[in-house]
Amino acid sequence: MFEKLPLLLFSVILAIFGLRGCLAAYSYTTQWINVPVDHFSFANNDTFKLRYLKNDSFAFEPDSAVILFYAGNEGDIELFAQNTGFMWDAVADHSNRLNAELIFAEHRYYGQSLPYGNKSYNSAKELGYLSSEQALADFASLLQEINPGNRRPVVAIGGSYGGMLAAWFRMKYPHMVLGAIAASAPVLQFRNITPCGVYNRILTSVFSTAYSNECSDNIRKSWAVLRSQSETDAGRALITRKFHLCANLTKHEDIGDLIDYLNDMYSNLAMANYPYPADFLAPLPAYPVREFCWRLKGKNLNDTQLVESLAEAVSVYSNYTNKVKCLDVKTSTTEALGTRGWDFQSCTEMVMPMCSDGDKDMFEPEQWDFKKYSDDCFKKFGVRPRSEFEMITRYGGYQIDSATNIVFSNGLLDPWSGAGVLRTPNNRIKIVIIPEGAHHIDLRAKNDKDPQSVRAARQIHINTIKEWLSQN
Amino acid sequence: MFEKLPLLLFSVILAIFGLRGCLAAYSYTTQWINVPVDHFSFANNDTFKLRYLKNDSFAFEPDSAVILFYAGNEGDIELFAQNTGFMWDAVADHSNRLNAELIFAEHRYYGQSLPYGNKSYNSAKELGYLSSEQALADFASLLQEINPGNRRPVVAIGGSYGGMLAAWFRMKYPHMVLGAIAASAPVLQFRNITPCGVYNRILTSVFSTAYSNECSDNIRKSWAVLRSQSETDAGRALITRKFHLCANLTKHEDIGDLIDYLNDMYSNLAMANYPYPADFLAPLPAYPVREFCWRLKGKNLNDTQLVESLAEAVSVYSNYTNKVKCLDVKTSTTEALGTRGWDFQSCTEMVMPMCSDGDKDMFEPEQWDFKKYSDDCFKKFGVRPRSEFEMITRYGGYQIDSATNIVFSNGLLDPWSGAGVLRTPNNRIKIVIIPEGAHHIDLRAKNDKDPQSVRAARQIHINTIKEWLSQN
Repeated sequence: MFEKLPLLLFSVILAIFGLRGCLAAYSYTTQWINVPVDHFSFANNDTFKLRYLKNDSFAFEPDSAVILFYAGNEGDIELFAQNTGFMWDAVADHSNRLNAELIFAEHRYYGQSLPYGNKSYNSAKELGYLSSEQALADFASLLQEINPGNRRPVVAIGGSYGGMLAAWFRMKYPHMVLGAIAASAPVLQFRNITPCGVYNRILTSVFSTAYSNECSDNIRKSWAVLRSQSETDAGRALITRKFHLCANLTKHEDIGDLIDYLNDMYSNLAMANYPYPADFLAPLPAYPVREFCWRLKGKNLNDTQLVESLAEAVSVYSNYTNKVKCLDVKTSTTEALGTRGWDFQSCTEMVMPMCSDGDKDMFEPEQWDFKKYSDDCFKKFGVRPRSEFEMITRYGGYQIDSATNIVFSNGLLDPWSGAGVLRTPNNRIKIVIIPEGAHHIDLRAKNDKDPQSVRAARQIHINTIKEWLSQN
Repeated sequence: MFEKLPLLLFSVILAIFGLRGCLAAYSYTTQWINVPVDHFSFANNDTFKLRYLKNDSFAFEPDSAVILFYAGNEGDIELFAQNTGFMWDAVADHSNRLNAELIFAEHRYYGQSLPYGNKSYNSAKELGYLSSEQALADFASLLQEINPGNRRPVVAIGGSYGGMLAAWFRMKYPHMVLGAIAASAPVLQFRNITPCGVYNRILTSVFSTAYSNECSDNIRKSWAVLRSQSETDAGRALITRKFHLCANLTKHEDIGDLIDYLNDMYSNLAMANYPYPADFLAPLPAYPVREFCWRLKGKNLNDTQLVESLAEAVSVYSNYTNKVKCLDVKTSTTEALGTRGWDFQSCTEMVMPMCSDGDKDMFEPEQWDFKKYSDDCFKKFGVRPRSEFEMITRYGGYQIDSATNIVFSNGLLDPWSGAGVLRTPNNRIKIVIIPEGAHHIDLRAKNDKDPQSVRAARQIHINTIKEWLSQN
């Protein structure tokens, strides 16, 4: 189960963002540049077209305008442009006096930036150039082209994996970027530098405190109940009926898909635990974890009661609009959004160990098993992670003393926050803790319901950008 | 001509170092680690064995010993280990109290670190993984293995291209290396940040001042004399006889090889302009440029006199031992030492523009012509430089304000010094100018003839390393 978690958690961010209805909210031109498929070797000299989006209508002195550069994530860049309201708000708010243009760079192999067109995912031969370092080099090539000689200052901005990229871009290409705002960037979710169980403990804590700790207690109990119920015809029928499953449970093993679905759901609910309704591919209410947990209260529920309550709670996530006919646990809501690419990245460099013990967290115990993880990857793609230490070797893990001009922001309601940078290594890395914040809420558009800590975080971002500019 | 210069100048360093007679002077164990052929992509998952040399006999507290890490150049690492006496002197001198072990890492595709064995140079398919970024990633993998968790401090050291790598390693992997001593590292010899004529002007100045400026004046005159003499039978016979050429000049065009030879020679003499005899593959006297120029003095020499004097002067370089029977201008003294690899690097990423005007320098005028350069590369290897800006995009050019803990040392007798970092961008980059220094003389073993400025430079290196360690 948890071997799969990192693959899914990141992509779901896109789902959170995936409010296709608001795609017209911001305007931009779509542009393309040619970049090498392989920036670091010369055995393959192919090039491809990388997409980026541009808005310079807020730059009141274009020749000296700052570039706010979104470091694209594992998905279609339009979704990020439309859903990183912070950047649009920052330039539109005249009181900021920020003479800036916006650039949103698409990450290779996602959206429309496919090096080998519709063959890009055929095999490791085509897909092998999907890596964070290659993506950073794309960003460098793009900036070399649109900002020759680095004459105008650039600030990188990103959330989640994009936040990691923004921070790493500042570390690896400090001559091209004055600073980076890295929101909810779990740059420490690697071997031995963050315990593998931290993610699930924070997640559990979010569910313990949103309404009452009966919620996480009931979740912890639910796994055994679901598994034992699934062993009898009557139990399978109960689960099928209560959850409105599209496909009947016909045998014991079928419960696995529901269990995977639930595990994903808990992460997604916590990441999107915003104080206002937000549209997933399916919509969510404000404070969805509280809504969920309110339905899963009660002590000493018997098996049937637990299944009933859980099924009702799940409907907050699966059917908030009441329009979904049945629950299809096999269809990820995020399938269209780069999960295959992220799968591959997780199997090569982005190995983020996860585990649970069922005691300090509400999940079924599962150890981190690198060998099994690697074997699964080999089955899937014919590749293995090069090592568990790859990303620490590459980017330094927590040894980032020499990095400067990065803001690491983390919401304490975000399970990824445990792997964020929470202590500054020097006087030029800023840490912003958002006690009431879920996954990079600070990069979202402002909202009347935003708690004070989120508003303050955004103001820190703006002030820090100005501070960097004034020191430049 | 000058399109060829960067290819040759770097490799000749090896020749300067190539004192095979002293190979036993320092002792070490030879070790190997497996590294990926391609660190940044996953289309090719081959691995190969990278060689490194190790001496820990001077580490008096092995568990906490500093690693002095030589960032291997474009050649066999044993030559560098044997000829970077500074490192051996540093650990052997007990008064330094430097608890350190020495590691010399071989650069991929040179020496015995051949990713595809004797097929490594077959075509761009095998050779394409020869790049500076891949070499730096090799160094990172090596350190990850021998120094897990970066528990012991590491200082990178290198000269010339190795100096560039040492500096870049600190910039790109600051978590793995506390600081870098970059000697005679022309990190600014790239498009538009150092004028293409600077190298030849410094070279000319070295020849103007070593004995008298008649030397550079006569060199400047010599090109036309050689070319016009080569147009007649009598002239060709004169040149053949005076230079003791192994192959008679039989036609006008034959003079080209001698002219190429001379151009290489001037660079080599200046780089190796040490105050004591040093062994090339052919040996050189102390202050070889002075020895050369003493033989090329005189005003208003007629053509025959100029040919005679030049030929005599050239023998300082070509036949100092009087054992060479004839001058073979087609055989580079450095052929065995990685020139093919450097040729490839120059045709892909290491594009270092060179030019001359025959007025401010003593060479035949030749403009920098990137298109012609690129076309020549395509003919040779089927590859072209990706862009003239490649290395500036990658490593920042002169925009290295955020780099820290690097010493850039440059000798003013070294033609490469014009493209060195000569002004500090901040208070943690140290600049060491060695007025009496040729090409990275400060990394050579101490010698009674060393001028005070060279001794002082070495002391600064030692003190700076200790300073970094004390701040760690």
